[in-house]
Amino acid sequence: MGAHKYSVGVDFGTESGRAVLVDVSDGREVATSVYAYQNGVIDERLPIPGKDIVLEPDWALQDPEDYLRTFQRTIPAVLKESGIDPADVIGVGIDFTACTMLPARKDGSPLCTLPEFREKPHAWVKLWKHHAAQPEADKINEVARAMGQTWLERYGGKISSEWFFSKVLQILNESPELYAAADRMLEAADWVVWQLTGVETRNSCTAGYKAMWSKRDGFPDSEYFKALDPRLADVIDDKMLRQVVPTGQRAGGLTEEAARWTGLCPGTAVAIANVDAHVAVPAATVTEPGRMVMIMGTSTCHMVLGTQEQIVPGMCGYVEDGIIPGFFGYEAGQSCVGDHFAWFVENCVPAAYEREAQRRSMNLHQLLEEKAAALKPGESGLLALDWWNGNRSVLVDAELTGMLVGATLATKPEEIYRALVEATAYGTRVIVEAFEKHGVPIHELVACGGLPEKNKLLMQIYADVAGRPIRISASNQTPALGSAMFGAVAAGRQAGGYDSIFEAARSMAHLKTEDFSPIPRNQQVYDSLFAEYVQLHDHFGRGGNNVMKRLKRIRAERKAAAARL
Amino acid sequence: MGAHKYSVGVDFGTESGRAVLVDVSDGREVATSVYAYQNGVIDERLPIPGKDIVLEPDWALQDPEDYLRTFQRTIPAVLKESGIDPADVIGVGIDFTACTMLPARKDGSPLCTLPEFREKPHAWVKLWKHHAAQPEADKINEVARAMGQTWLERYGGKISSEWFFSKVLQILNESPELYAAADRMLEAADWVVWQLTGVETRNSCTAGYKAMWSKRDGFPDSEYFKALDPRLADVIDDKMLRQVVPTGQRAGGLTEEAARWTGLCPGTAVAIANVDAHVAVPAATVTEPGRMVMIMGTSTCHMVLGTQEQIVPGMCGYVEDGIIPGFFGYEAGQSCVGDHFAWFVENCVPAAYEREAQRRSMNLHQLLEEKAAALKPGESGLLALDWWNGNRSVLVDAELTGMLVGATLATKPEEIYRALVEATAYGTRVIVEAFEKHGVPIHELVACGGLPEKNKLLMQIYADVAGRPIRISASNQTPALGSAMFGAVAAGRQAGGYDSIFEAARSMAHLKTEDFSPIPRNQQVYDSLFAEYVQLHDHFGRGGNNVMKRLKRIRAERKAAAARL
Repeated sequence: MGAHKYSVGVDFGTESGRAVLVDVSDGREVATSVYAYQNGVIDERLPIPGKDIVLEPDWALQDPEDYLRTFQRTIPAVLKESGIDPADVIGVGIDFTACTMLPARKDGSPLCTLPEFREKPHAWVKLWKHHAAQPEADKINEVARAMGQTWLERYGGKISSEWFFSKVLQILNESPELYAAADRMLEAADWVVWQLTGVETRNSCTAGYKAMWSKRDGFPDSEYFKALDPRLADVIDDKMLRQVVPTGQRAGGLTEEAARWTGLCPGTAVAIANVDAHVAVPAATVTEPGRMVMIMGTSTCHMVLGTQEQIVPGMCGYVEDGIIPGFFGYEAGQSCVGDHFAWFVENCVPAAYEREAQRRSMNLHQLLEEKAAALKPGESGLLALDWWNGNRSVLVDAELTGMLVGATLATKPEEIYRALVEATAYGTRVIVEAFEKHGVPIHELVACGGLPEKNKLLMQIYADVAGRPIRISASNQTPALGSAMFGAVAAGRQAGGYDSIFEAARSMAHLKTEDFSPIPRNQQVYDSLFAEYVQLHDHFGRGGNNVMKRLKRIRAERKAAAARL
Repeated sequence: MGAHKYSVGVDFGTESGRAVLVDVSDGREVATSVYAYQNGVIDERLPIPGKDIVLEPDWALQDPEDYLRTFQRTIPAVLKESGIDPADVIGVGIDFTACTMLPARKDGSPLCTLPEFREKPHAWVKLWKHHAAQPEADKINEVARAMGQTWLERYGGKISSEWFFSKVLQILNESPELYAAADRMLEAADWVVWQLTGVETRNSCTAGYKAMWSKRDGFPDSEYFKALDPRLADVIDDKMLRQVVPTGQRAGGLTEEAARWTGLCPGTAVAIANVDAHVAVPAATVTEPGRMVMIMGTSTCHMVLGTQEQIVPGMCGYVEDGIIPGFFGYEAGQSCVGDHFAWFVENCVPAAYEREAQRRSMNLHQLLEEKAAALKPGESGLLALDWWNGNRSVLVDAELTGMLVGATLATKPEEIYRALVEATAYGTRVIVEAFEKHGVPIHELVACGGLPEKNKLLMQIYADVAGRPIRISASNQTPALGSAMFGAVAAGRQAGGYDSIFEAARSMAHLKTEDFSPIPRNQQVYDSLFAEYVQLHDHFGRGGNNVMKRLKRIRAERKAAAARL
């Protein structure tokens, strides 16, 4: 084995898919290619020429052909760009948004690709942010609580409308003939691996985090599904695979057809599917407890490993083997982080700032960061609750809304901007403290995603507020790197890869040398401000004053009244 | 008496003085002239060429010569513009900002005009918004409370740092030699009347609202002043006139010198001085109880007349004969109204809106009003506490700050703008309800000042929120009209004027025909939102959570720490 070996990671995002060709020896990213989905996010009408099939509000679909095109375009592109011999590519791994799911035939054909179902919206892929299954989620929760289903606790007491069975139940409710026609209901993540390998598998990550499965108890039993809807009683055996495979395993080898699509060799090892946020954890060097990974983008996912099963209230969920085999993987989330700053920049920054940014060839985010960085903690007198998109952690309440207090006539835009940044940092500290209080210790934060790269002020504020050092993933495409790492593990040491994700992480995952340590005098001020945050958080979030919900109700009534006019 | 008779009202504002020549028969405004003060608001250094005498923070001074120049420039200008025979001008009235005060010699010379005192900041006029006497105000309140001084109740339990004796005590504390050199401490309002007539008088309006005087009890007694500072024991007899004259009286006739300045005839009647907000009341047609006048500009003053003495908590004060002879004049205030919207437009409106406004040849206020007017009450889900500049009514707490709740990623600038408008309307309703609860009924609102002219949405929201009809003063320079009315009263019926302000108001004051009535379905929604406002108002304003004060304290500490570095 003289030559370097390589692995390909394919990261399926919301708007595009991305392949990264990685050197297995050290994780160096040799080539990258991105394919913008032809049909993107389908949220207005089905992409069928000559037809005008309009979707309901809150729908969000995708076209599975876009996933295949991602393979067909990006993998040949990275091979070509790098000039690597396909024979030196030993593995492929993929990660996906989740829960992104679809109904398919026994042979893997998505129902939406069959002429008889193509015009039915429910035949298409339901993207993670398809939010039309809230009534179904409510029913899932209500029945689970009534029946005392213990698995509900693993998900902070609440199943989301975004998750697998909410979407399945919506298909059954609204299109029973389509439900009947589906031999399979599965994650798009597993579907693309099936397309590569010809073998149907079901990964532990999406099964655990999105489909109520656990290693110890499997899926909820038939009695529960029957109570939900008699037609669902045998959903697991009828429509799914009962066998769930931990991430880090080999799903199979590339088929001849998939080899033609990609330019790789038939038989190349393909890893069990994974989820974008979860696969980023080992790629951010974390394969042990105590270090929380924050995948920071429009929203933030928080991932931490534990050796014991702990119930942490208000978390998104925990899954044994869900992130790294042998550990409980805990997930929490903040629903409004990058989105928060984007909202502010779009709606609240005056023209004078735009002119200054243009004059100085900066974007508005950079200008605000610079101005906000000149402020000292506490100097603005402002404090915000970061609930512009509800609260997805601890309180798990989508009806909560944003709040700002402390404004005066001297308040400047950069002060509000900094208060919003700080609010998201306080939200993170609430999560860290909830983990620690319930037996999941955290002594360091590791950030990855788009934001940490771009905003040093943000990182310093997080370190100061959380009172913990922050490191940053060296890769700016951490999920794709993680998928490539799993590809190398699927190939195994004999083929030039690794026998475990631990080994792969030691060689392939890196942190930037720059780190952010808490500055003691800032930490002290932020401790005072955090105490204020917690008091407002609990007052408005735990029923002291439900004004946010009442305002939302008044708003909904007024909008409904206006629509009737 | 064939010819029309005229009266001149001179309104001394913060940045300029304005004369309006008015037809006494019907209030028609014949000519207007504005003089921008040469030395404006002096808040950085004294305007002495070649000297660099820097003022402390929070100081705000004026130059009394600017007041004389106002007479010298504007009255000749309105005479010239109108072509009126000066013999047909029967009276002059003035109104002033308050408390704006100065130390002077027995002959009326301001100390700052004397070479030996010119370089001493305390020798100059202290403008109403000179805010450096807070320690003195604190002491005035503390001693009054300790001694059980009953007059304190007339001012909602608190004397402001802006008021007369706070400023006097600051002079005594910081410049005792200047205090000693002053034969007179007096309101600039009374000083300009003295300059016109050669007669020193003291008007009931500033004495009552700003200098702790009442018709029944006079000034606080010597024991109180002695307790404040032994050197102050005889301040009333040493430095002031004990005799206070109700507004509506004649102060005297124009001196030969003042006649030369103004071009008017010697002996022309001059009215007792008045205050800008108070003089606007009869000019807005209000000379009886039950109709509250709102003078709406950067802040709002609320004036209402009562027949009985009532203690209304948290009001700025009430004075018998303070507005209209024979009535108790009640005053309340909101410290942030136009300022609120100006802050928002300057700091929070994105460039895209500025471009749209430019394209459509509107200003940003007009664009926001248009967009906000398209929204229905309650539709934004937002609610604000209008405390960007503290709370000057009911709660009387300058340490309170602004708050916004209900923000989401869908929140638009015009929604925030509307929420701020609504918040000031809720603040007004709190004042109206406080008056009514304590025996001062209000069945109609009458608005004047810059805002009501410009913003119809604002007026409709106030009507809907307050549940009362709103009328608008026909004049867009209501205070100057009011001063001219008092000038006509000073002249009296025999000279072609009026014998009382009631008569003058009937002929000279008018309302616009357009009025704003509450729209029942809006009123209903606003009742719900107002209940939410009151709950937040009481929680944050009455000690439920003093986060606003703690944030201000942290802010002050951080700013002090930064200054030390």
